[in-house]
Amino acid sequence: MPLTFFTPGPAQLYPTFEKHLQNFVSGQLGSISHRSQQYRDIHRFTVEQLRILLNVPETHAILFLGSASEIWERILFSCVELESFHLVNGSFSKKFHDYSSALNKYAHQLEKPMGEGFNASEITVPEYTELICVTHNETSSGVQMNVAEIHKLKQKHPNKLIAVDMVSSAPYPDLDFKLIDTAFFSVQKAFGLPAGLGVWIVNEKCLKKAESIRHQYSIGAHNDLPTLWKNSLNNETPATPNVMGIYLLGKIAEDFNNIGVKNIRKETELKAQLIYKFIEKSSGFSPFVKEKPQRSQTVIVANTETPSADIIKVVKDKGMVIGSGYGQFKSSQLRIANFPATSTEQVQELINALEVI
Amino acid sequence: MPLTFFTPGPAQLYPTFEKHLQNFVSGQLGSISHRSQQYRDIHRFTVEQLRILLNVPETHAILFLGSASEIWERILFSCVELESFHLVNGSFSKKFHDYSSALNKYAHQLEKPMGEGFNASEITVPEYTELICVTHNETSSGVQMNVAEIHKLKQKHPNKLIAVDMVSSAPYPDLDFKLIDTAFFSVQKAFGLPAGLGVWIVNEKCLKKAESIRHQYSIGAHNDLPTLWKNSLNNETPATPNVMGIYLLGKIAEDFNNIGVKNIRKETELKAQLIYKFIEKSSGFSPFVKEKPQRSQTVIVANTETPSADIIKVVKDKGMVIGSGYGQFKSSQLRIANFPATSTEQVQELINALEVI
Repeated sequence: MPLTFFTPGPAQLYPTFEKHLQNFVSGQLGSISHRSQQYRDIHRFTVEQLRILLNVPETHAILFLGSASEIWERILFSCVELESFHLVNGSFSKKFHDYSSALNKYAHQLEKPMGEGFNASEITVPEYTELICVTHNETSSGVQMNVAEIHKLKQKHPNKLIAVDMVSSAPYPDLDFKLIDTAFFSVQKAFGLPAGLGVWIVNEKCLKKAESIRHQYSIGAHNDLPTLWKNSLNNETPATPNVMGIYLLGKIAEDFNNIGVKNIRKETELKAQLIYKFIEKSSGFSPFVKEKPQRSQTVIVANTETPSADIIKVVKDKGMVIGSGYGQFKSSQLRIANFPATSTEQVQELINALEVI
Repeated sequence: MPLTFFTPGPAQLYPTFEKHLQNFVSGQLGSISHRSQQYRDIHRFTVEQLRILLNVPETHAILFLGSASEIWERILFSCVELESFHLVNGSFSKKFHDYSSALNKYAHQLEKPMGEGFNASEITVPEYTELICVTHNETSSGVQMNVAEIHKLKQKHPNKLIAVDMVSSAPYPDLDFKLIDTAFFSVQKAFGLPAGLGVWIVNEKCLKKAESIRHQYSIGAHNDLPTLWKNSLNNETPATPNVMGIYLLGKIAEDFNNIGVKNIRKETELKAQLIYKFIEKSSGFSPFVKEKPQRSQTVIVANTETPSADIIKVVKDKGMVIGSGYGQFKSSQLRIANFPATSTEQVQELINALEVI
């Protein structure tokens, strides 16, 4: 019996994945040159579908890299000469911060404990900050930063660049790319694809910044922004890309567009509501994130009274996989992914299984 | 009718690819956590099979990254504080060199025209070179550096590190990893897999060098060598890897081991001999590389009298795809890949098709 994965990534593969994979294989697309028109058509199609899905204007390029972690590094290389500023409230926002230090930038941070989130009004951005780094969805703790708060933060600091990590939430957050300079995600989360591809949305301001930095500091050699950008104008990448991942992503994005991103967002909220309601009302479970507006719609974290490993086991025997807590919360929390690949019916089944416990 | 690809990468997929892919899909391996025992077992299996195939001792780690180009950068970050030295005789060895400059290292080079190769005796390595960078197989020009010459070069400079680009030749070159500090390849060439994964073989000396450099210079943030190494001890990667690529690579490496790497190398030489013989004796074709020992066994480059595009078209009508020349030689050369995925019979068919022209 196949399992249903409610894990926060790698996650359940999207129902149409196998069909698209079969077409990739039968079309021999794994062998085509990445300098051929056939490749460029695939590349362009995926970019077009993502533009529609995420409402990305032509001021922004959509670029393909190996992973979201690689994109952290490329953003810092490109957009920060000296100082970045990070909202840190979990393991992944912390890593983004640590990457900046590792590149010998001065990485400021405003840190909160896991489970807590940020509002624009409480944030003081250090004066010489060049790039503000926010995490829309902290995969480790299930905290989400409201999109309106992200927009406010940028509006208060129009002359600083802002980067939004939406690794485990895209296409859920409805970002306004007139405000957001750069954002990124990976495909093994809400897009329901195997891991191995990161997507970088980035505007001309970031490109200009990279071009100005490069006279004095290294902006990296592999996948540096000016080279990526230049190649993208021709629907190509500097090095041989993950053609399979790019092809599949375009097809899934098209599927999402056929459903309509508004419908996907609405269904995400509906399913999240079901799960949170269950966690709130059931003894033995409680939501980790106290502030309701900061509760993630895509990665739901629950405190458990019994060791989470026991619950994971019982649920797995019923054909469903849920994630353990992250780091120090490994044994006292559950992480339940709520991505488009799992239907309302499947979420209801999961709740039924948890109810028995 | 499916095409047979004799292109130098992305290339013909290995005949067992589809079977392994099917097992990956039916096992739901695209959804498993990269922090699970199930993942670690896959990771370990692939490393073990590559160790056997390429005779890699335990002094060297085998690491998984996004592409060989990314590995260029990581090697330079890890092994070069100030000065690297590059043997440059084509576009890819040139890019390795340019990456070093882009990281603000001093990149020395010994350059030769495309089509020419190097012997150890003619190479003077600048005194303060920390890393010698050689390209076993120049994909752009079809020039191969003899493995014995690579070994000699290292023996003459035992206190310098040496890096071998075997992107488009592994597992053909029988490198002696008692001498070679680091080497790397990608999977869309001779391993007959879709692109999206680079493999980095690297020894403890490189690790120590990276650890010593990091006190003063950045060694990168994403996939820096000490973090990759530490994770690899636990059969993991720092970020979510291309699990599908790693799984498939392990299976193909196992297939290669079942055939025996000696047999694969022998068949490669036999097929190369067939192609070179044809090119030499046929009017309208001539080998680009004049020095026989420097002729690549895996990417064979032929000058053509008629425009190569015309030949490519005729051959494609017969169900076979061959590559054009690289860069300035695009229209006057053919590049014919000779990887394990294409059999002697298929090579003979290609020759028959070319013979008619």
